[in-house]
Amino acid sequence: MNDRKLYLGVDLGGTNIAVGISDAGGNLSGKLSRPTPRGTGSIISAIAGACEQSLADAGLSVSDIDSLGVGVPGTIYPEGVVSYACNLGMKNVQLAKLLSERMGLPVFVENDGNCAAVGEYLVGCGRDAKSLLCVTIGTGVGGGFVENGRLFRGANGCGVELGHMVIEYGGRLCACSRRGCFETYASATALIRDCCEYIDSAPNSQCAAIAAERGGVDGRTIFLAMDAGDSGAGRVFGRYASYLACGLTNLVNIFQPELICIGGGISAQGERLLAPVRAILAEEGYARDCDVRAELVRARLGNDAGIIGAALLGRLKGEEIQ
Amino acid sequence: MNDRKLYLGVDLGGTNIAVGISDAGGNLSGKLSRPTPRGTGSIISAIAGACEQSLADAGLSVSDIDSLGVGVPGTIYPEGVVSYACNLGMKNVQLAKLLSERMGLPVFVENDGNCAAVGEYLVGCGRDAKSLLCVTIGTGVGGGFVENGRLFRGANGCGVELGHMVIEYGGRLCACSRRGCFETYASATALIRDCCEYIDSAPNSQCAAIAAERGGVDGRTIFLAMDAGDSGAGRVFGRYASYLACGLTNLVNIFQPELICIGGGISAQGERLLAPVRAILAEEGYARDCDVRAELVRARLGNDAGIIGAALLGRLKGEEIQ
Repeated sequence: MNDRKLYLGVDLGGTNIAVGISDAGGNLSGKLSRPTPRGTGSIISAIAGACEQSLADAGLSVSDIDSLGVGVPGTIYPEGVVSYACNLGMKNVQLAKLLSERMGLPVFVENDGNCAAVGEYLVGCGRDAKSLLCVTIGTGVGGGFVENGRLFRGANGCGVELGHMVIEYGGRLCACSRRGCFETYASATALIRDCCEYIDSAPNSQCAAIAAERGGVDGRTIFLAMDAGDSGAGRVFGRYASYLACGLTNLVNIFQPELICIGGGISAQGERLLAPVRAILAEEGYARDCDVRAELVRARLGNDAGIIGAALLGRLKGEEIQ
Repeated sequence: MNDRKLYLGVDLGGTNIAVGISDAGGNLSGKLSRPTPRGTGSIISAIAGACEQSLADAGLSVSDIDSLGVGVPGTIYPEGVVSYACNLGMKNVQLAKLLSERMGLPVFVENDGNCAAVGEYLVGCGRDAKSLLCVTIGTGVGGGFVENGRLFRGANGCGVELGHMVIEYGGRLCACSRRGCFETYASATALIRDCCEYIDSAPNSQCAAIAAERGGVDGRTIFLAMDAGDSGAGRVFGRYASYLACGLTNLVNIFQPELICIGGGISAQGERLLAPVRAILAEEGYARDCDVRAELVRARLGNDAGIIGAALLGRLKGEEIQ
């Protein structure tokens, strides 16, 4: 590993394009964020412009950069083709090729969940692990799996769509058209929905008062209500944690990773979130009597996981080839 | 691949020990089966005795054999240690080492679901595929995943326990202690249970008459009743197929294999089983709009998958190292 290598990373979201320059150890410079425009051509111009600005801010030029990586919320074919990304309006877009022509750099494109997994594996919580399953909890539930330095992609680059694993047959309708998907119970969106339903059913609760005071419900509301001693809020969170643990136990039974990490905003709750999940995993995991069991930890890179992971796709690729 | 290499394979079940000699192409000779005795020492002696008999039957000696492979219904640590196999009463048994000392051969030990996957991948339905997820439906639901010539084992050798993925939160109690596991809905055991429940609720149905005539319910009863025009039996099977498709869709969303195959006795039903599952997969799979989608097929090696796959662990190992 040559720590002087530099990589450009782009976290291409439906709302914002976040850009930064990472060294091989995941240290970021030139971080900036711009709104995501509509239309593929505009998006490519915006990415290129943001990258150039980031380089200028950091006092660097394209010739200092090893490669450019982009994380996309969608399904990605080999060679960096965006097969489908509904929030970006992209279908069969040769993003790597187009960006490479524009920037004069090698470009790697991966699903955003995969990028977060790569970042955590190489320079985050998984840097000493041989295998890591990274589960990102946000609007939906995404993920990625890296083992022995290789990112698991599946035959079509769409592998490890963890959020679309049904855990309740015939359950809540998911945006993917199935019923009962993991993400309809375990995403931050789901926790906020559960919290709203609780407030509707208990308008005089502390939870309702906290929501009113803070101008609405967000991912923190239920935790603030628990802090205030609202036992109903505790029950809502307990049910959420039970569903989360159900899906994570499924995933551990399938992947048996050395490490499983939880990322996304809610992971800031730390042990309050992890401890109940860990207890269920220890009780229900198929390998509970094995000496070697998956360890559940919090992701380490926070909001930068997407940029760092995208940037380090070039480092991973280099090490995969060796 | 040298087709003149020969491999001994052992399918070590809770009831029987099945043995055979396979060439690199999966052609078997010297097949035989013996009851499984109780106690680790007796099991090892019985395996060795069955292997020696198989060699004698085939006119071969140990010096003709490249390696010995054993498939075990349990969790296997690296180096062929049986971590836990409840139906054999084994816990932390150094099976590979003990058998190797006894037979004077290299010995490989893997989970039986993994062995079936290896057999199908190398010489069965997956011989032209880069990745195969093999799902075996029997007393439980087992599986294995092979990609680019490598068997997926997980950090502790217990990976791909597909049967113990919850698809109905809080559902039917599973032997593993969880509720709602895939195998409690999609195993042959589950289909037989569903059939019995139907007969209890409809004692005058054709299904009930068929069961009475055949002296009980087995995995074929529901299909015979459908053949006889029993519409209630059709509904029972439709629900079974829907649960099966639910779990398989989850697995395709996670692994995105080139090929997914169904093995076990029920796969003899062919398209009657596969067609409804394929329709649900096509409608609900996350990658349904991708050009590259997992193809669902029937396993090809039948009851010999376990012996052939165990035997060919040596071939896989040799190719993994190269």
